[in-house]
Amino acid sequence: MAELGFVGLGVMGSRVVKRLLDAGLAVTGWNRTKEKAQWLLDAGMHWVDSPRAVAEQSDIVFTMVTNTNAVQAVTHGPDGILSGLQPGAVYVDMSTTSPANTRAIAEKVAELGARMLDAPVSGSVITLEQGKLSVMVGGDADVFARVKAILEVIGPKVFHVGPNGAAVTMKIATNLSLAVQMLAFSEGVLLAEKSGIPRETAVEVLLASVVASPMVAYRGPFVLEQPDEAWFDVNMMQKDMNLALELGRELDVPLPTTAITNEFLTAARGMGLEDKDFAVLFDVLAQMSGVTAGAAT
Amino acid sequence: MAELGFVGLGVMGSRVVKRLLDAGLAVTGWNRTKEKAQWLLDAGMHWVDSPRAVAEQSDIVFTMVTNTNAVQAVTHGPDGILSGLQPGAVYVDMSTTSPANTRAIAEKVAELGARMLDAPVSGSVITLEQGKLSVMVGGDADVFARVKAILEVIGPKVFHVGPNGAAVTMKIATNLSLAVQMLAFSEGVLLAEKSGIPRETAVEVLLASVVASPMVAYRGPFVLEQPDEAWFDVNMMQKDMNLALELGRELDVPLPTTAITNEFLTAARGMGLEDKDFAVLFDVLAQMSGVTAGAAT
Amino acid sequence: MAELGFVGLGVMGSRVVKRLLDAGLAVTGWNRTKEKAQWLLDAGMHWVDSPRAVAEQSDIVFTMVTNTNAVQAVTHGPDGILSGLQPGAVYVDMSTTSPANTRAIAEKVAELGARMLDAPVSGSVITLEQGKLSVMVGGDADVFARVKAILEVIGPKVFHVGPNGAAVTMKIATNLSLAVQMLAFSEGVLLAEKSGIPRETAVEVLLASVVASPMVAYRGPFVLEQPDEAWFDVNMMQKDMNLALELGRELDVPLPTTAITNEFLTAARGMGLEDKDFAVLFDVLAQMSGVTAGAAT
Amino acid sequence: MAELGFVGLGVMGSRVVKRLLDAGLAVTGWNRTKEKAQWLLDAGMHWVDSPRAVAEQSDIVFTMVTNTNAVQAVTHGPDGILSGLQPGAVYVDMSTTSPANTRAIAEKVAELGARMLDAPVSGSVITLEQGKLSVMVGGDADVFARVKAILEVIGPKVFHVGPNGAAVTMKIATNLSLAVQMLAFSEGVLLAEKSGIPRETAVEVLLASVVASPMVAYRGPFVLEQPDEAWFDVNMMQKDMNLALELGRELDVPLPTTAITNEFLTAARGMGLEDKDFAVLFDVLAQMSGVTAGAAT
Repeated sequence: MAELGFVGLGVMGSRVVKRLLDAGLAVTGWNRTKEKAQWLLDAGMHWVDSPRAVAEQSDIVFTMVTNTNAVQAVTHGPDGILSGLQPGAVYVDMSTTSPANTRAIAEKVAELGARMLDAPVSGSVITLEQGKLSVMVGGDADVFARVKAILEVIGPKVFHVGPNGAAVTMKIATNLSLAVQMLAFSEGVLLAEKSGIPRETAVEVLLASVVASPMVAYRGPFVLEQPDEAWFDVNMMQKDMNLALELGRELDVPLPTTAITNEFLTAARGMGLEDKDFAVLFDVLAQMSGVTAGAAT
Repeated sequence: MAELGFVGLGVMGSRVVKRLLDAGLAVTGWNRTKEKAQWLLDAGMHWVDSPRAVAEQSDIVFTMVTNTNAVQAVTHGPDGILSGLQPGAVYVDMSTTSPANTRAIAEKVAELGARMLDAPVSGSVITLEQGKLSVMVGGDADVFARVKAILEVIGPKVFHVGPNGAAVTMKIATNLSLAVQMLAFSEGVLLAEKSGIPRETAVEVLLASVVASPMVAYRGPFVLEQPDEAWFDVNMMQKDMNLALELGRELDVPLPTTAITNEFLTAARGMGLEDKDFAVLFDVLAQMSGVTAGAAT
Repeated sequence: MAELGFVGLGVMGSRVVKRLLDAGLAVTGWNRTKEKAQWLLDAGMHWVDSPRAVAEQSDIVFTMVTNTNAVQAVTHGPDGILSGLQPGAVYVDMSTTSPANTRAIAEKVAELGARMLDAPVSGSVITLEQGKLSVMVGGDADVFARVKAILEVIGPKVFHVGPNGAAVTMKIATNLSLAVQMLAFSEGVLLAEKSGIPRETAVEVLLASVVASPMVAYRGPFVLEQPDEAWFDVNMMQKDMNLALELGRELDVPLPTTAITNEFLTAARGMGLEDKDFAVLFDVLAQMSGVTAGAAT
Repeated sequence: MAELGFVGLGVMGSRVVKRLLDAGLAVTGWNRTKEKAQWLLDAGMHWVDSPRAVAEQSDIVFTMVTNTNAVQAVTHGPDGILSGLQPGAVYVDMSTTSPANTRAIAEKVAELGARMLDAPVSGSVITLEQGKLSVMVGGDADVFARVKAILEVIGPKVFHVGPNGAAVTMKIATNLSLAVQMLAFSEGVLLAEKSGIPRETAVEVLLASVVASPMVAYRGPFVLEQPDEAWFDVNMMQKDMNLALELGRELDVPLPTTAITNEFLTAARGMGLEDKDFAVLFDVLAQMSGVTAGAAT
C-alpha cells in the first residue's frame, strides 16, 4: 500500500485526510499549526515536523493550501517538499493556483525524478462530506492512473482534463460561475423582496427551482443568516475571478458576467465587507437597493 | 371531484394535462390547433370548441400560453374564458405574464364572482416528466387551499408566495438566473476550450461541479449539440429578462448581471440566431472569441 | 414673417423663446403655469390661454415638454394643439419622446393638412446660451427647408437626419453617452482620489484632457458641489436610457455600456438620490468605494 | 540654458522634440532606430549613441516609450540612463507605466543624487500639434518648479498632481474613459444606423453634440474609415485598462464601465482585430449587431 503524505490540514484538507484514514489508508501529515491536527492524530494520522519530512516518507504527497504563495512556502526552501521528494514519487497539488505556477513546479518535480499532478476540487466541506466532491486532474495519463483510486476515495467524481495546469484552468473556469450565480441569485431575491414577497419565501422557492445549483443550495440561505466563519471570503473569491480574467485576456475569451461581477466583489471591499463569505454580494446589492441586508451584519 | 378545464395545449401544457389525466382527473381542453391535442383525446381528455366553453363546464380553469398577448386572446372576447367563467369557479393562469396584467385580470375575475390564481412553473418538460417541477402560486390563501392538491399533481413542489401577481414576479425573479447562468457557463467552457481542454470534457466537468444547477445540467450539453426544437428560444428568454428589468426599475433594484446578459441575447438576434434555444448565448461568445461554435448550426 | 407659437416654457423652452424674441421674431406662448412666463411677456411674448389657441394663431407651433405623456397632454383633447392646428401650418416637437409616438402624431398632423417635424436638441441651458446648441430634425425635406432658418436661430447647428422619428432616435442615440461618460468619469475621479490625488485636482486634470466632452466640462464639477436645481435628474436620464435600450432590442443592437450604466441610475434611486442631477452617479460609486460623496448631499 | 536629453523618438516623442527645438531649446536625442530621427537631426537635434550618453550630457533627461518593459530597457543596463545620470540632474518619464514601477525607478534615481518626475500626457499627435496637450506631473514640488517651463512648451496645460506615481495614476484614471466613450459612441452610431440614419450623418451629429470630447472628435470618424496606421491599438488600450482595473482592486474602487468595455477589447482580439486602433470597438459591436463594419477592413 502506498504511503501517503498530506501538507495543509485546514478546513478542507483535514477533512480530506479524515476520508483517507476512514478508507484505511496510511497518512503522514503536517500543518503550520499542529493543534488543529489533533483530531486527525487521534484518528490515526502520523505526524512529522516539516513538509520535507512528509515528502521523505511518502510515495504520494498531497498539498491543499490557500493560494500560490502558500504553495511556494510548503514546496520551496530547506524544509520544503521539493527538498524531500523521492525519485519515483508523485506530488499532487490540490490547491487553486495559477496555471503558470503549476507548470513551473511540475518542471522542478520532473528534474527530481518525480512526477506531478494538479488536482483541485469543486465543492465545499458539505459537498465533501456528502461524498459528492469533484476532482479535476492535470498531468500525464500514466501518473493519473497510479493515483486515480486514491482520488476516488476523496471525490468520488474524478476527471483527467489534460496536461499539467489544465486542472487549475478547469477549476478557474468553474469557479467564475460561483460569484456570477450568487449575484444573479441576489438580484432575484431582492426583486422578489421589494415586490412584497418575504425574503425567506423567495429563497425557499429559488432553492426549489431549476437555477438551484449545489452552490446556490449551499449559499442561498446565507442571505438570511450569514455564517460566523467565512470559508470562502470576498478576497479568495476575487483571487479566482482575477485568474479567470487574466486567462480570458491571454486566450482572447471575453468574460462579461465575470468582469461585471468582479466589480461587485471590489465594492464589497469598498463597503467594508471583505471578511465575509462572498455571498455578501447580496448585501452590496441590497445597499444599492435601499434594503437592509441584515444578513452579513 | 372538481371538473378541470385546460386552455393551451402546447409543449408544456399538454404534458401537464397528461399528468392530470394520469392521476385520474377529468379534464376538458381546448387548443388553437386541435390536431396537437389528439394524443390527449386518446388519453381521455374531453374536447370543446372554445375557451368560453371550457370555462362554462369547469370548476377550475387553467391556462398555459406563451405570453401576455396570448393570455388576453384566450380570456377576452365573446369566446374567451371570462365570458364563460362560472360564479365560484377558480381561474388559474400558469403562463408567465407581467404582474400588472395578472392583477388586472384578477380584478375582472372577481367581478364575475370567481377567483384567480397566478401559478407559473419553474422547469422544462424534462423537469415536469421527472416529477420535479416547482409551482409558484399568487392569490388568496383560501383559493390556494382549494387548488393545492391538484397543483401538487403537477408539481409536486408548490409554493404560495403572496397575493395575485406575486407568483409571476417570483417566476421572473427566478428566470433571470437562467440566462445569466448560461452565459457564465459559456464563459467557463470557452476558457477551458481555448486553453486546450476538449469542449466535451469541459462540459462533463462543469456538470459534475457545484455550479451545475438543473438548468445547467439540462442545457449545458446544448453547447455540444443544439437540439432541433427550441423549447425556450432567445425571444422568449428575453421577454422574461425585459420583465425583470422593468420590475427592477420600478422597484429600484439594480440588476447588473441581468442587464449585461440581456444585451448578449440581443446580440444573438443581431447575429441571426434568434430561433435557437437561448443556450445559443454560447455561440455569441464563441464568435467573439474566434471559436467555431458548431453547436447551434 | 411667420407667426410662431411655443408651448412649454420650462427651463429650456423659455430660453429658446427668449432667443427667438431677441432675434426679432413674433412668438405666442403658453405654459401650464403662467407666472413662470412673466419675464417672457415682459420681453414681448404674446400670451394665449391654451395650446389650441397657440396653434390657431401660428404658422409654426413648437412644443418643448418633459416626456411622451406631456406631449400627449398638450397636443390632444379639446384644448390641444391638434384641435387648433391650421392647414398648411408646421408643428415642431422639440421634446424627447419615443420614435413611435412621434410617428403617430405626425400622421394625425398630416390628416389635418399640416406637417410635422421632430426636432430635439443636444445640450443644456449653458450650451444654448453659449450659442452652441445642436438641433436634430426629422421629417420631410421641404418642411425642413421652411423652418431651417428659424431653427438656426435656436441652434445654430441644425441637422436634417431623416424622416419623422429619426431625430428623436438620433437624440436617444446621443443621450446614452451622457450617462455612460458620467459614470466612466466618476470611475476615474475615484481612482485618482483613493490613490491620494485631491478630488479637485482630479477633476481639473480630467477637464483639461481629451475625454472632456462639453457634457464632462459642464457636469464634471458637480462631483465637487452638486447644484441646488437638477435640470436633468436621475429619472429623466433613465427615461432616455430606457428608450435607447428598447430601441436596441427592437433593432438588434446590443448596448453594453448603456445597459450597465442604467443599473447604476436605478441604484441612485434605491439609495434615495433620484431628485439629483444624474451626475449623482458619482455618489453611487463613491458609496460603493467607501468614500464620502459630499457632493450631492 | 538647461541641456535637454530625449530618449524615445516615436510618433509622439519625435514631435515633442520638434516642439522643444522650435522653441530654441538644445536637445540631445537617441532612438532605437536612427533613421526615424533624421528629420530631427535636420532640425538641429544632437545625436549620441546610447541612452547612457544622452544622460551624461543632459541636465534634464526625458523618456517617452511604449510601456513598462521599454522603460526598463532604456533606463537599466550598462547603456541605460541610470548609468549616465548626473548628480543634480532630473529624469522625466513621459511614458505610461505602472505606478509601482515609477516609484521604484524614482528611488534608484534618488540614490544617484538625481531626481525624477513622472509626466505622462493626455492627447494624441493631433492634440500636441494643436497646442492643446495636457501634461500630468508626479514628483516633488521643487523638482516640478525646475522643469515646469519646459513642460509648458510641450503642453501647454501642465498639472502637478502629487508625488511620484501620482501622474501615471492620473493618466490611467483618464485613459479608461477613452475606451468607454468609444464603445458608448459606437452604441449610439449603430442605433442610429439600424434605424435608417446614414452612418455619416450619425457621426456628424454626434460630433456636434455635447458628448463630443476631443477623443470622440478625433476617433469618431474612424468608424467611417479606419486609418492605415494605428497609433493606439487594441493591445495598448487594453494595457491601460488593465492598469486601471488592477488599481481599482487595490484601492477598492469598482469600475463597472471600464470592466465591461475591457471585455470588448478582448473580443476585438478574439475577432482578429488586435492590430487596429481601439476605435475598432465599433466593429466588434457592429458584428454583434449583424452590420457590416466596413470601417476597419
